[in-house]
Amino acid sequence: MVRSSEWEGSVTESINTIYLLFSAYLVFVMQLGFAMLCAGSVRAKNAMNIMLTNVVDAVVGTLSYYLFGFAFAFGSGTHSNPFIGTGFFALSGIPNDSYDYSYFLYQWAFAIAVAGITSGSIAERTQFGAYLVYSFLLTGFVYPVVAHWLWSSAGWLNPNHSQPLFGSGAIDFAGSGVVHLVGGVAGLWGAVVEGPRIGRFDAFGKGMPMRGHNATLVVLGTFLLWFGWFGFNPGSFNRILVAYPDAPSQGNWTGAGRTAVTTALAGSTAGLVTLFGKRAIAGHWDALDVCNGLLGGFVAITSGCAVVEPWAAVICGFVAAWVLMGLNVAALWLGYDDPLEAAQLHGGCGVWGLLFTGLFAEEELVVQAYESGEIGVRRPFGLLMGGGWSLMGAQATEVASVVAWVSITMGPLFYVLHRLRLLRTSVEEELAGLDISSHGGYAYEDHEEGSHHRGQYAPHFSGDYTRLQEG
Amino acid sequence: MVRSSEWEGSVTESINTIYLLFSAYLVFVMQLGFAMLCAGSVRAKNAMNIMLTNVVDAVVGTLSYYLFGFAFAFGSGTHSNPFIGTGFFALSGIPNDSYDYSYFLYQWAFAIAVAGITSGSIAERTQFGAYLVYSFLLTGFVYPVVAHWLWSSAGWLNPNHSQPLFGSGAIDFAGSGVVHLVGGVAGLWGAVVEGPRIGRFDAFGKGMPMRGHNATLVVLGTFLLWFGWFGFNPGSFNRILVAYPDAPSQGNWTGAGRTAVTTALAGSTAGLVTLFGKRAIAGHWDALDVCNGLLGGFVAITSGCAVVEPWAAVICGFVAAWVLMGLNVAALWLGYDDPLEAAQLHGGCGVWGLLFTGLFAEEELVVQAYESGEIGVRRPFGLLMGGGWSLMGAQATEVASVVAWVSITMGPLFYVLHRLRLLRTSVEEELAGLDISSHGGYAYEDHEEGSHHRGQYAPHFSGDYTRLQEG
Amino acid sequence: MVRSSEWEGSVTESINTIYLLFSAYLVFVMQLGFAMLCAGSVRAKNAMNIMLTNVVDAVVGTLSYYLFGFAFAFGSGTHSNPFIGTGFFALSGIPNDSYDYSYFLYQWAFAIAVAGITSGSIAERTQFGAYLVYSFLLTGFVYPVVAHWLWSSAGWLNPNHSQPLFGSGAIDFAGSGVVHLVGGVAGLWGAVVEGPRIGRFDAFGKGMPMRGHNATLVVLGTFLLWFGWFGFNPGSFNRILVAYPDAPSQGNWTGAGRTAVTTALAGSTAGLVTLFGKRAIAGHWDALDVCNGLLGGFVAITSGCAVVEPWAAVICGFVAAWVLMGLNVAALWLGYDDPLEAAQLHGGCGVWGLLFTGLFAEEELVVQAYESGEIGVRRPFGLLMGGGWSLMGAQATEVASVVAWVSITMGPLFYVLHRLRLLRTSVEEELAGLDISSHGGYAYEDHEEGSHHRGQYAPHFSGDYTRLQEG
Repeated sequence: MVRSSEWEGSVTESINTIYLLFSAYLVFVMQLGFAMLCAGSVRAKNAMNIMLTNVVDAVVGTLSYYLFGFAFAFGSGTHSNPFIGTGFFALSGIPNDSYDYSYFLYQWAFAIAVAGITSGSIAERTQFGAYLVYSFLLTGFVYPVVAHWLWSSAGWLNPNHSQPLFGSGAIDFAGSGVVHLVGGVAGLWGAVVEGPRIGRFDAFGKGMPMRGHNATLVVLGTFLLWFGWFGFNPGSFNRILVAYPDAPSQGNWTGAGRTAVTTALAGSTAGLVTLFGKRAIAGHWDALDVCNGLLGGFVAITSGCAVVEPWAAVICGFVAAWVLMGLNVAALWLGYDDPLEAAQLHGGCGVWGLLFTGLFAEEELVVQAYESGEIGVRRPFGLLMGGGWSLMGAQATEVASVVAWVSITMGPLFYVLHRLRLLRTSVEEELAGLDISSHGGYAYEDHEEGSHHRGQYAPHFSGDYTRLQEG
Repeated sequence: MVRSSEWEGSVTESINTIYLLFSAYLVFVMQLGFAMLCAGSVRAKNAMNIMLTNVVDAVVGTLSYYLFGFAFAFGSGTHSNPFIGTGFFALSGIPNDSYDYSYFLYQWAFAIAVAGITSGSIAERTQFGAYLVYSFLLTGFVYPVVAHWLWSSAGWLNPNHSQPLFGSGAIDFAGSGVVHLVGGVAGLWGAVVEGPRIGRFDAFGKGMPMRGHNATLVVLGTFLLWFGWFGFNPGSFNRILVAYPDAPSQGNWTGAGRTAVTTALAGSTAGLVTLFGKRAIAGHWDALDVCNGLLGGFVAITSGCAVVEPWAAVICGFVAAWVLMGLNVAALWLGYDDPLEAAQLHGGCGVWGLLFTGLFAEEELVVQAYESGEIGVRRPFGLLMGGGWSLMGAQATEVASVVAWVSITMGPLFYVLHRLRLLRTSVEEELAGLDISSHGGYAYEDHEEGSHHRGQYAPHFSGDYTRLQEG
Repeated sequence: MVRSSEWEGSVTESINTIYLLFSAYLVFVMQLGFAMLCAGSVRAKNAMNIMLTNVVDAVVGTLSYYLFGFAFAFGSGTHSNPFIGTGFFALSGIPNDSYDYSYFLYQWAFAIAVAGITSGSIAERTQFGAYLVYSFLLTGFVYPVVAHWLWSSAGWLNPNHSQPLFGSGAIDFAGSGVVHLVGGVAGLWGAVVEGPRIGRFDAFGKGMPMRGHNATLVVLGTFLLWFGWFGFNPGSFNRILVAYPDAPSQGNWTGAGRTAVTTALAGSTAGLVTLFGKRAIAGHWDALDVCNGLLGGFVAITSGCAVVEPWAAVICGFVAAWVLMGLNVAALWLGYDDPLEAAQLHGGCGVWGLLFTGLFAEEELVVQAYESGEIGVRRPFGLLMGGGWSLMGAQATEVASVVAWVSITMGPLFYVLHRLRLLRTSVEEELAGLDISSHGGYAYEDHEEGSHHRGQYAPHFSGDYTRLQEG
């Protein structure tokens, strides 16, 4: 009956749209999570600056992704090719048979997250103008190109490409590489070009601790990121109403649930390992280490979350914790200063995540995630699961390609900004804090009236209200 | 088959209820967003007071909206008329063919938001008892009446009224007028009657900056409001499973996605314009200005979000930023003190939003949003799109009616409270802060033992813990 | 047609999975809510400690619930019995006909909440090692056993057991008993064994106020908990696509909406009563009291939320407020110190909630919630509604059983830890604060350079940046 079939189509669209829209909203929460995480991890005198960069990511990113970012990533115009898409500029031609507005919104929420990762690496010493330039370029061009490679069916690394790389294509389900490695490598180059913050290393090159000003914000940000990751990973199925012919009464609804579980397990394992690992190293239990460990586990599982079993997610998180701790030791040894550990966390654990998928992906789950569980279809899968080297080769290719692409685009950009003296703030400004030098005041006010020994802009949290009554 | 048709009904109800319930939860988050935004925007000595008002909005609003607010807004009893509804008091008669509990919940989340807007305008100088009175009246009576005009099919401004105003009715899809203008005008009268805070203007009438105590809370609140707006605007479709006969494979799922996109675009554009505009005016990049700009863009697009194309949303946001900046200049010039800029932001951008819809609404989208895309139906649409003056006339009528209605109800209320000396706190209390005078202590404690030079209740953030060990 | 029936199955699974997954995400937010509530309610010197315990709850709980907690609660292996489940260890055998991953995720979010409740009772004076031990045991064993009793169909208190207790079984729809009473009783024993914090009572046994350090965090946490409760209570239907044959066009979608409404009403009423009650007692309006009142109302309605009418929820909240205020007076009188009032709030209001359900449950709603509204089925219901003593007897049995079970497991555990000197920190550590003694530094940093009169680790919020420029 024609009428009924139309109704079935509407039901399908409604269900899938609800799933995608609310997942997009959760991914958007990650922007807030990053803002709080970053704010808490820097010193109070730079809190306004780092929060502004996060707000501006969202604001600038929305416009640049609307105007051309989405077109570069998913455009299917006549000039589209395996490297970059064209079409759908400023949402022209949307909605169509492939993409509705909800798809754009979901991808938009991913895009604005990338620049936020990078901002962590170069925090506390970067001019705001430089931030505007790189944020615009990263969200509008560098990131969308990688997204095209992996997530557009025309992309040369896409597993559903008509002739996928090594007969496999790379599996980066929710973007350990596309999102986190891109943001991490960009941050790495920014931090390398800028050099460490004043005081981060003493005259002998010994690292001096520079603790963030508010651990509560760090925990708040971490939990919000966890919450958002439930949109990031399970949401990457895009459509939940897809049945798997190869498994009775299973479908993307099963896959989405399992993906949420692998996500929680990888993060929790990494957090727990970091808790005990850092206890052994540093001698105390540190909430901030657990938070970073958690996030490292999430970053690592993001690539393979949909194609591995829960037990493998535990392994993923276990290794991710050591990768993060090891890279942090190396960074200290190398004199590399990254206030949020963003390059180590998003870059390092992102690489591990891509390789992990090459090792542990299960064939049935790969077929379900990328072929809707069609019966009789076979695909390359994880090396340790007996799936051969094809997938692993594609994963390694993604790592190399992403690192190369981001390096040749963002590296020169940061270098040119540096040479033009547009990148790093002056010594005086850095010491005084970016908030007072660039943003008209500190993030925190105390409004003491009649206070003599403190300057006009002194940002005390404490309010000595009793003076009012005494004086 | 009868059985199958019953199943189809259950599927439809389930899908629409999921959509509406989770949208309601998001709208509820706006209450938290307002609380954080307000807390961060006032001085530390009044943080507890302003947060309490936000909590009390939710608590008092829940009961008053349950008992009679919903009845005034959507009641369809024998005494209902175009001006006010009756029926469904205390949810009697719910659920019925028109309204299920989820609909009540969604409307409840809107209702409790209104008083929160107003509380920003009169922050830092209002007696708590006065707050209880106006909050109860606003949520339980003044707001529901406007909601009835616009959103009940019996309302005289409703576009689906049997004889809509000017053959059109006013389009206020998610409430630029119903919610934001109502809250803003109420705040305007409150702030005008109370007068500015002590110290806000010097002896020559020059405005003195009074910065909020915590920019992190402002950013947190702004992002939470953005998150909640995804429930506010797209959620206002109420039912997502509605196909449009006039567009193949499109339906409210398309409209909901586009509404989320227009919302993000309008806010982002307004935020970006404010960033550069205030940079030009004030000479620095200010995160708080961007936050207020963002919110102004959201307020403005709230009326037309479902009936304009994304490109028009960019225009909406662009103008909203200038409306807000202009009104803030005017407020300073007029000696008007509104700690949260609530009247300017929710009132001013709310008016612009209603007029914007009258200018840019697209006919096809109006038919889809208000006639489910029925083929052959025509409706008045935006003036600049060639739709004539009918819609614009209805929009202007809504502006005038809302301003008049809120003014004749809330204005006298604030004036009477003022004359009874129940509205504004004493000078001593205002200087000392409302937290210590009315709420038993400050929002922040430091627990210094052995501290001599500070009073018993001194709310220092800083804890000089070393003294413990030294002394 | 076979094809169509398969499609119908996929639609049903998709709808129910969306509902359950997003509800699970909301419940997860409660972990963040607890973290913020707890952080704000303790003194600044212990903020890092209490936040770490909340993060560790999530991390440890995820692994222990994955490995065996879920198996003890819902396992249906050959050794399963009315007391404890076995099977599904480490998710083996999942998914199956009864449980998909989404169900595990939903139950996981509940499990990690329990230890968070308990951590409030023993805050500010407990060794971190002890915390790890009891958290692991509570989440992995003590709580799952109670969940099995009530929520597994094999459990001896389950209303759908083949031979339910008293022909009724206990109705604990979302866990006033299973979650809150368990956490509260565990906290009670911990706090009793440890004794009050130093300085909480003076030499004459008079209680000295020990205010938390940040009321903003308390309000933030409370609103996040409210948000999460919309996942906790309505989400406990698990499946939304269930039609009620006994009521036209109603189904779980109606029940879910009504449950959200009863939740909001009970909390709001309790908050409002507490506002005025504490105003009468203490002489000021206190936001923190309203927050605790709200939470008390939520805890109480959690048991009966799905089986009572909205008007009854108002009664539920009204009494809950007095229960909480009364128990707080009693605690002060008895010299019991519970920094978060967790035993009073989750324990006391949890007991009231179970009894309230025994008094006010409506027969039709019980049949709908537990028999999908099958026509002709009758079940015991509330005593005051004319339903006899069967349900009330089962409710009282649940209270007694939960108190007994948690007491005989957690009581000895705390006592043994106490005797081994592993439970309470030393006097010096408690005075200095747990953050500096166990966690390597305070939650808040000020980074003052050149500051002489303050120690290396002094956690000032205030940053005296002007000194930099002067000195």
